[in-house]
Amino acid sequence: MQQSFAERLCKQIALKKSHAVIGLDPVIDKLPSVLVQKAIDAYGKTSEGAAHAFLLFNKLIIDAVSDLAAIVKPQLAYYEVFGAPGIEAYWRTVEYAHSQGMLVIADAKRGDISSTADAYAQAFFSKSSPWKSPDQWVDSLTINPYLGSDSLLPFIESANTHAAGTFILLKTSNPSAGDLQDLRLDNGLKMTDKVSQFILSLQETEKTTHAYSSVGAVVGASYPEDLAYFRKKLPRSIFLVPGYGTQGNFSANLSHAFNEDGYGALISASRSINYAFGTQIHADEGTISDMIRKAALTMNEDINHNLTLSNKLAW
Amino acid sequence: MQQSFAERLCKQIALKKSHAVIGLDPVIDKLPSVLVQKAIDAYGKTSEGAAHAFLLFNKLIIDAVSDLAAIVKPQLAYYEVFGAPGIEAYWRTVEYAHSQGMLVIADAKRGDISSTADAYAQAFFSKSSPWKSPDQWVDSLTINPYLGSDSLLPFIESANTHAAGTFILLKTSNPSAGDLQDLRLDNGLKMTDKVSQFILSLQETEKTTHAYSSVGAVVGASYPEDLAYFRKKLPRSIFLVPGYGTQGNFSANLSHAFNEDGYGALISASRSINYAFGTQIHADEGTISDMIRKAALTMNEDINHNLTLSNKLAW
Repeated sequence: MQQSFAERLCKQIALKKSHAVIGLDPVIDKLPSVLVQKAIDAYGKTSEGAAHAFLLFNKLIIDAVSDLAAIVKPQLAYYEVFGAPGIEAYWRTVEYAHSQGMLVIADAKRGDISSTADAYAQAFFSKSSPWKSPDQWVDSLTINPYLGSDSLLPFIESANTHAAGTFILLKTSNPSAGDLQDLRLDNGLKMTDKVSQFILSLQETEKTTHAYSSVGAVVGASYPEDLAYFRKKLPRSIFLVPGYGTQGNFSANLSHAFNEDGYGALISASRSINYAFGTQIHADEGTISDMIRKAALTMNEDINHNLTLSNKLAW
Repeated sequence: MQQSFAERLCKQIALKKSHAVIGLDPVIDKLPSVLVQKAIDAYGKTSEGAAHAFLLFNKLIIDAVSDLAAIVKPQLAYYEVFGAPGIEAYWRTVEYAHSQGMLVIADAKRGDISSTADAYAQAFFSKSSPWKSPDQWVDSLTINPYLGSDSLLPFIESANTHAAGTFILLKTSNPSAGDLQDLRLDNGLKMTDKVSQFILSLQETEKTTHAYSSVGAVVGASYPEDLAYFRKKLPRSIFLVPGYGTQGNFSANLSHAFNEDGYGALISASRSINYAFGTQIHADEGTISDMIRKAALTMNEDINHNLTLSNKLAW
């Protein structure tokens, strides 16, 4: 039987000694000019050109960090901007990450009624459908719980079948996250407590003996008190923690995201790694690659330095 | 200045005397065999083949109903199953619907932090970006409020700029909709009351003199008491009402969705129209088109018959 997502992920974390997730969020106007020019030369200033530049950029990033991070997280929105060519670049990026030994989280935040959730699950998890390309699958997907339990179950069931994982939005990293998520209920709990209960209950559908569940949660670095609170409530969940770096949070805020065994959290950075070259948009590929690699190394050191000794022993 | 989405929509509703939204939710195994065979002949049993069958099917549906409905609603999930070719079929469907005088709602239920929400808004609303194909835009998009107000604002601002609209998920049509949406807060209100307040506040960002706002709401036909309650709370919102037909609700449940002027609700049906041919999967195109058209006519009659006389006078 194929190893679960959680098991594959924890092995990669131990191997690479890294809790980092590298976001892949390409924005055409911010890309290195040398890659943009190559794309224009090949496809002109078209959606195909933008998509080609994305793929070149993502390959450069993956080559620079594949030994420094277990997993990449391309965000669908940036690819959807360019329609079908953008989506083609998305799946070629996923394929390339897999070929370089990295796992992939599709950051898509999908959520819908059950028949539609089935279709989304098929789009992201299924490997062997007739008609569908066999390269079009990811290891994990972010999902939105607003529509309730029957909208989540099709994702979990499909993930269980395909040894994939999910990260359910619990407390997001943005300033307005609490508008709905922190609403206090008449029973004294918060809305997020209800989502946390969903996660516990969905974990019971898994057949696994591994310490960690493949039903994870998104908990933003911006809210350390929530990290600490839900760490206790959801001991078997791996937390996907956005908001590190550009969004203003560093490792001092993150100590509560991890369990005593040194696992349990993936710290995600996108812009601070992707655009580590800053204003040096005209630098050559080697220079840009070096700056991206250096940013990823710095991030790993920052996170690992702040893990306590007992946590480090787990490696 | 371009007419607002709400204004364009109300004109089409009056012209076609129809409050119907036709969902376009293609599932390859349920499509008419004559179209599937054409697609296999052209592209084989591949993602390109499935996508081509989707486009043929959608054109057949649009041709059958374009004078009977103001707007179509293709659901992204069904197209994402087939990767880039699926998305190509999505945008060719949108282009064809526009060419036949129909408006389009992209049912995507997107929602993310502000920088990512900007990218989604660009993907769905923007018409004149460099690099992006000029045919890739919709009139309206469904969005998910779970991440709070700062995740909604980029969509509304972009919609205002591009004379487009949004439908914010308020109370969805699925059985578990109330798991989070109906949670009772410590102030006696429900979670959906908070979302309703977002909608009112976002409507204030619009510059329009039209009776209706382009910031709409999704309220499922399954919950008539919510339709009645939010109809009063959100008088200027157009409600996108899923759950008619296959999901088990007919017009008797829908009287409260409309305002006294006969406007204010779009009743959405997907499977009951798309698959009106039932088990006659091997029928010829003319027969299938006739059955789809008949289902749309029946739906219009059912809805219009149950609108009160004073409402009908508005036409």
